[in-house]
Amino acid sequence: MIGRTGIALGAAALVAGMTLAAPAMAQFAKPEDAIKYRQAAFTVMANHMGRLAAMAKGERPFDAAAAQHSARIIDTMAKLPWEAFVPGSDKGKTGAKPELFQNLADVKTLSERLNGETGKLVNAAGDLDALRKQVGATGAACKACHDKYREM
Amino acid sequence: MIGRTGIALGAAALVAGMTLAAPAMAQFAKPEDAIKYRQAAFTVMANHMGRLAAMAKGERPFDAAAAQHSARIIDTMAKLPWEAFVPGSDKGKTGAKPELFQNLADVKTLSERLNGETGKLVNAAGDLDALRKQVGATGAACKACHDKYREM
Repeated sequence: MIGRTGIALGAAALVAGMTLAAPAMAQFAKPEDAIKYRQAAFTVMANHMGRLAAMAKGERPFDAAAAQHSARIIDTMAKLPWEAFVPGSDKGKTGAKPELFQNLADVKTLSERLNGETGKLVNAAGDLDALRKQVGATGAACKACHDKYREM
Repeated sequence: MIGRTGIALGAAALVAGMTLAAPAMAQFAKPEDAIKYRQAAFTVMANHMGRLAAMAKGERPFDAAAAQHSARIIDTMAKLPWEAFVPGSDKGKTGAKPELFQNLADVKTLSERLNGETGKLVNAAGDLDALRKQVGATGAACKACHDKYREM
């Protein structure tokens, strides 16, 4: 019975980790494609977080339109990587810890926290003080997952 | 005089190739960062074009919501890479031909054609026949630039 429960929980966690109706594997021909896809989404997101962080820290002049542009891209990107943590993509050129793939329900919870913060980021980006606070909250949501599940 | 005109045209082409108000170099700490960024945007875009092409060809069941989701991501991604063709990013791990960097005004024209088609793709994605046509038109816009400026 314990064995069965374990399997059932594992399957539930797997399903919980998927964000689209279609089977996630169908979106990627090979596990390597899934790895490249999620890394690409993170790369675009990180670039725009860097732009906003530079404005928040005063390293770059605040530009409301540019900040809103970056925030919208971050909010879009923040929804993408999660379906790409597919079976088999724990091997290869990935910076994801093996633990991530055993905790997909937790990853889903963390991704929902991030998506909540990036939604607020879009609303905050037009005002420098609001942007500063929300860049901090968004960065904390990034870090919460990185600390648990990212190598390095 | 011919020399001067050449320089002036080169500078105009450079300016025409930039899509944001802020200096493009400021968005990327190093040329390698610009290369990674534009490749990441293309990777996400190509994945979703693959999903739509599979529906258009009947290799995957048509799903209007999934198609619209992919089309919106493609439309967002299609606006990103162009600011990342910055000076110095013609070297290194890039698939861009050297000619691209001498023809930034043409690249801008081709990117605007693409952006026009991806905007139509968002509107077309809810209907399979419309999607089929517009995936073709969008793919042709991708190819027009690849044929001229992409290695391979």
